[in-house]
Amino acid sequence: MSRIRLGMVGGGNDAFIGGVHRIASRIDDRFELVAGALSSTPEKSQASGAALGLPRIYDDFKQMAQREARRKDGIDAVIIVTPNHVHYAAAREFLKRGIHVICDKPLTSTLADAKKLVKAAEDSDALFILTHNYTGYPMVRQAREMVANGDIGTIRVVQVEYPQDWLTVEQDFKQAEWRTDPARSGAGGSTGDIGTHAFNLACFITGLEVESLAADLTAFVPGRQVDDNGHVMLRFEGGAKGMLWCSQVAPGNENALRIRIYGDKGGLEWAQEDPNYLWHTPFGEPKRLITRNGAGAGDAAARVSRIPPGHPEGYLEGFANVYTEAADAIMAAKAGQDAPADVLYPTVHDGLKGVQFVSACVKSSARNAAWVKLDH
Amino acid sequence: MSRIRLGMVGGGNDAFIGGVHRIASRIDDRFELVAGALSSTPEKSQASGAALGLPRIYDDFKQMAQREARRKDGIDAVIIVTPNHVHYAAAREFLKRGIHVICDKPLTSTLADAKKLVKAAEDSDALFILTHNYTGYPMVRQAREMVANGDIGTIRVVQVEYPQDWLTVEQDFKQAEWRTDPARSGAGGSTGDIGTHAFNLACFITGLEVESLAADLTAFVPGRQVDDNGHVMLRFEGGAKGMLWCSQVAPGNENALRIRIYGDKGGLEWAQEDPNYLWHTPFGEPKRLITRNGAGAGDAAARVSRIPPGHPEGYLEGFANVYTEAADAIMAAKAGQDAPADVLYPTVHDGLKGVQFVSACVKSSARNAAWVKLDH
Amino acid sequence: MSRIRLGMVGGGNDAFIGGVHRIASRIDDRFELVAGALSSTPEKSQASGAALGLPRIYDDFKQMAQREARRKDGIDAVIIVTPNHVHYAAAREFLKRGIHVICDKPLTSTLADAKKLVKAAEDSDALFILTHNYTGYPMVRQAREMVANGDIGTIRVVQVEYPQDWLTVEQDFKQAEWRTDPARSGAGGSTGDIGTHAFNLACFITGLEVESLAADLTAFVPGRQVDDNGHVMLRFEGGAKGMLWCSQVAPGNENALRIRIYGDKGGLEWAQEDPNYLWHTPFGEPKRLITRNGAGAGDAAARVSRIPPGHPEGYLEGFANVYTEAADAIMAAKAGQDAPADVLYPTVHDGLKGVQFVSACVKSSARNAAWVKLDH
Amino acid sequence: MSRIRLGMVGGGNDAFIGGVHRIASRIDDRFELVAGALSSTPEKSQASGAALGLPRIYDDFKQMAQREARRKDGIDAVIIVTPNHVHYAAAREFLKRGIHVICDKPLTSTLADAKKLVKAAEDSDALFILTHNYTGYPMVRQAREMVANGDIGTIRVVQVEYPQDWLTVEQDFKQAEWRTDPARSGAGGSTGDIGTHAFNLACFITGLEVESLAADLTAFVPGRQVDDNGHVMLRFEGGAKGMLWCSQVAPGNENALRIRIYGDKGGLEWAQEDPNYLWHTPFGEPKRLITRNGAGAGDAAARVSRIPPGHPEGYLEGFANVYTEAADAIMAAKAGQDAPADVLYPTVHDGLKGVQFVSACVKSSARNAAWVKLDH
Repeated sequence: MSRIRLGMVGGGNDAFIGGVHRIASRIDDRFELVAGALSSTPEKSQASGAALGLPRIYDDFKQMAQREARRKDGIDAVIIVTPNHVHYAAAREFLKRGIHVICDKPLTSTLADAKKLVKAAEDSDALFILTHNYTGYPMVRQAREMVANGDIGTIRVVQVEYPQDWLTVEQDFKQAEWRTDPARSGAGGSTGDIGTHAFNLACFITGLEVESLAADLTAFVPGRQVDDNGHVMLRFEGGAKGMLWCSQVAPGNENALRIRIYGDKGGLEWAQEDPNYLWHTPFGEPKRLITRNGAGAGDAAARVSRIPPGHPEGYLEGFANVYTEAADAIMAAKAGQDAPADVLYPTVHDGLKGVQFVSACVKSSARNAAWVKLDH
Repeated sequence: MSRIRLGMVGGGNDAFIGGVHRIASRIDDRFELVAGALSSTPEKSQASGAALGLPRIYDDFKQMAQREARRKDGIDAVIIVTPNHVHYAAAREFLKRGIHVICDKPLTSTLADAKKLVKAAEDSDALFILTHNYTGYPMVRQAREMVANGDIGTIRVVQVEYPQDWLTVEQDFKQAEWRTDPARSGAGGSTGDIGTHAFNLACFITGLEVESLAADLTAFVPGRQVDDNGHVMLRFEGGAKGMLWCSQVAPGNENALRIRIYGDKGGLEWAQEDPNYLWHTPFGEPKRLITRNGAGAGDAAARVSRIPPGHPEGYLEGFANVYTEAADAIMAAKAGQDAPADVLYPTVHDGLKGVQFVSACVKSSARNAAWVKLDH
Repeated sequence: MSRIRLGMVGGGNDAFIGGVHRIASRIDDRFELVAGALSSTPEKSQASGAALGLPRIYDDFKQMAQREARRKDGIDAVIIVTPNHVHYAAAREFLKRGIHVICDKPLTSTLADAKKLVKAAEDSDALFILTHNYTGYPMVRQAREMVANGDIGTIRVVQVEYPQDWLTVEQDFKQAEWRTDPARSGAGGSTGDIGTHAFNLACFITGLEVESLAADLTAFVPGRQVDDNGHVMLRFEGGAKGMLWCSQVAPGNENALRIRIYGDKGGLEWAQEDPNYLWHTPFGEPKRLITRNGAGAGDAAARVSRIPPGHPEGYLEGFANVYTEAADAIMAAKAGQDAPADVLYPTVHDGLKGVQFVSACVKSSARNAAWVKLDH
Repeated sequence: MSRIRLGMVGGGNDAFIGGVHRIASRIDDRFELVAGALSSTPEKSQASGAALGLPRIYDDFKQMAQREARRKDGIDAVIIVTPNHVHYAAAREFLKRGIHVICDKPLTSTLADAKKLVKAAEDSDALFILTHNYTGYPMVRQAREMVANGDIGTIRVVQVEYPQDWLTVEQDFKQAEWRTDPARSGAGGSTGDIGTHAFNLACFITGLEVESLAADLTAFVPGRQVDDNGHVMLRFEGGAKGMLWCSQVAPGNENALRIRIYGDKGGLEWAQEDPNYLWHTPFGEPKRLITRNGAGAGDAAARVSRIPPGHPEGYLEGFANVYTEAADAIMAAKAGQDAPADVLYPTVHDGLKGVQFVSACVKSSARNAAWVKLDH
């Protein structure tokens, strides 16, 4: 099976997430990175590309899109890992040339951009895959499958949270800088950077849509221009209720994304930092600890697991699962076929919902936590 | 040291909490139960009293208050463990006769009763102790001491929750019956029964007052007249923010009271089901696990611990600590002295705040989760 | 129901375990402490007894035994909580006068004494209860019941351990002093003080007898006369194998008694520091977490539980369960009846086995860890 | 930087560990798999190689060694992932042709083979890397660094264990079949397959050598020809003592490798199933939880970490670290230089010690658990 040829926009020397995408794309050997426009200036792009030994290095994403589109052996797909405000402009160039896009979250920095990007994706024959990577964890798949199977009954309550602590004090390194700049990150701070992950995870597992929310956002660190803590109450279509907490000022929390879902027959609990475990709590029976590839785990998890139970898979493997799903979809597309029915990845529409979530949070908070509909 | 003579109102044969209070009062050997009006009818009172071998059994609390007040060896204090709607009427009878009152939470079933009870307590020479028993856990004391010492800096975020699962389905036994009847329990269901504990714990540890709240209450089980799930956003005086979740429909949760407090220097995390552990997370340092009576635990916890670290103390010992604080205060009062400075127990004013919390939750929820001040 | 009248030998002001026994005897209100010979000198005995407000204080245990035996309202039972080398002499005085004995473990400091004490107990009409208190934990009872029910099949492997850290460095306070003096503690150090608990627990839950053992004992702290670390391999009658580790020099371990039992159908895991949880691991199914009084817990645990699941019971409640079993047995004996069939407590024979365990460990270690039979 | 060209011996379609090695070799993009002799028959080799799309497929390892040695673009290194009894014969062919060997553990199935393989490696210019992959986990490196820094003082006690449950009942699939066949696996069953990992880990972290051991091995499943449970007491040079338990019949244990090390100043605890955490327990201070790349983690761990704390790295990343160390060493060798000082991987000598461990266990057990020296 030949490898899918990849380009990368962003992800230069000092960007954390670029390296993650590169490893994730390699793990299952389905992709080959052959081109890049890795930084915001031609000089830095060249330097970063050379450091990686890339065959083809471009000054900027537009140049890359144009030239790769013309090559016979041009890239099949592009990874976009720039700061958020560049996502739309970059994605557009590739989509309109039929090059598949694998894009980091959140979809865009503004709701207007998000809507334009949805249009661009809909108008294109190319696929758009959004790397809400937590959806790739096997036990997240297991949870989704169990909900769909009715194992916990009708969902009533969803508690999801994503606390971190790295912005507890003012930080001035690059990762912190653009993430706390509304012009590049978007109007949401913690809500955009990690709240969107929590929101997406809740919807992905439950299969429910959030109807409206009430948010109380705060910037605790003096001078910070975007929220570093978000308290959000959720109302789901159909009557379930939820709470979402995201924070970057909660000392002792590294990436403590955690979700708990309760239905009228039982509950499910999962934590990103210990991702190989899923608690299932059927009402009136002892709690059960389901492990990745272990007894009690089903097909949806097995499909995206590589190694035996008790040998932990982690963040990179979960991320790699999104890439492998993308590979299956892209290979099908190249063959003019639909993706297999079990291929599952976050779409541009999920991305729009995430930006709507941020926008609704900001709007609600500005109105003293009044309820705001998601598609306001 | 002679034992304090106790009477009990409520707590008959089929009441769970009466037995808890009796054990708690015995653990440190400071009290002796000598009288009771244990049930709502004279017959059941007599039967329950006889089963316990009580020396003096009364038909009702009023009879007990009158007769005990006249005896030379009458009770020094009374425990009130009836359903909530009886608290005020019972407490008043003893307070006005100078008999100290140890009363179960919440203070009353209505805000009007709560205010009258505050007045009655203020007008009396007798003490009023509210058994928010979780304040008695040594590691809760430790947390409070660390906050007061500035170990976590200025508090920004408080996440507190108390999920249970016993009302996931409709229940018809006695404990469930009165707790879901607004006439006896009060307008709050889960908010009154367990939300008040979470609220009290947050205030007790942080030393902060809640300024206002926004609540979204739900009765998920069809036909239930009071909330069985409460989602609440909190704003504290001084700028801290919080979330409170209480639920009786979260399968897999027994009494999962848990609090997490984050300041600008560090955090603290404590869970009632594993009460001998306190996580301290100083920003930029490894997490530390402080254990009861273990290395790193301070005076406030040691003062209320009985046994070495690694030998777990539990719910009954934490409850007993409230009784022992009460004993110290009562003995001081008998001697005409102030209680020692380190004696610490929840007061009638804490009880009023709890009822205000429930009332504010109900009011806010009725107004679509609008913000309501606590002293509305 | 009238209370059982108790005396106490040992347990004076500065003894940790005396206070534990007193609380444990009070929790279920079945006993009343009315007499004591609490220390090794008449002066200290008087002072300690006065501090507790004891009605009758004696100079020594012999005087107490003689005089109480003559009183019409004399003690029904005596608690012996002296250093180990006094157990036999004290117990004998009460047993021969028909006074029931509740005695701390290990049974005696020497094997010769242990055998004489068995004889004395057999010759007496009085009961002998050994406070291997960990047998009183509800989830230990649950584990025993599950083994007996065949839930884990035929037992193959037993891993039991009891590490502590308090003797990591030389200590000179009273508790450390006598426990590291072979004349008072016995030839075993960690093996006698805590290894016996681990050994007893393994036998109690599994219902198996240890046939032989091979032990490698070490005194790591320079100058220490008894072992502070014991490594022991066990062979059970019937073919199961086990390992036992006890240590007082394992930093970070408080009282980390833990047992894991594996059969051909499943396993069980329990840890004393988190005693309300029992893991059941049926082969080929997800792990299950059974909680005290929670779903999946059976009659044997419910019988010795007081409060709902999620409200932790601890060390003192487990200890109290041994006392309450003793109370049931003593009341039956007073009525000239056999104890009810479900009454369960460690006996003088269990105590003999514990001393045999220590003796075998010491003998094996002296022979370079050769296998030694338990009844050598 | 050009990639190192790799061949693979063993690791065909139905072998678990081959796929693990392939992923591990890809994660950091230092290797390229270009040749293989993946199975024991030419037909299966061809089929497996074709399935992987390998450029060069050979009938057997000898053919591969010969032909690759002659090519200008021949492989730089070979991965050997056959059943144990083939390791020596295969490794020899490559070593004698100067091709670096990366070999799965245990080193060989017999002690005689192990000694010959040491000789072959010593006689070769090529490197020999043994994939005791657990040495690649960042927090294992952290533990090793802390021991070397004296953070826990002089080591006294080492408790290491590796229980599994997959052989609780008889199994007839391929993985189980050869692992329980002494002709292919070696005389040790659980001792060889997983006991060697535990043994290696203990030595790797502590820097200590085991002087002698006493082992009680058992085959619990009827008809099994090798041990499925091993109880081993260890004596280290210098006076430390230890216990090692390995089992394949402990239901509920997946790959529960765990090590606890106690010195006179503190302790360390690590568990493979939760590999991003390391407990440090300084005597007399609260326990500290050190996380990968988190506060308190040092250079040795950071050097082999890829992503931020709270994003778990797992088994494959730990395995990849062994590969990346190998890559650094191989690149240095190709340049005629010594490997950088911080490059660290298990060697053929570590492999010999592992086989000596198995041999000593088998010998000791046959002599009723008599002490056997490791270099017997």
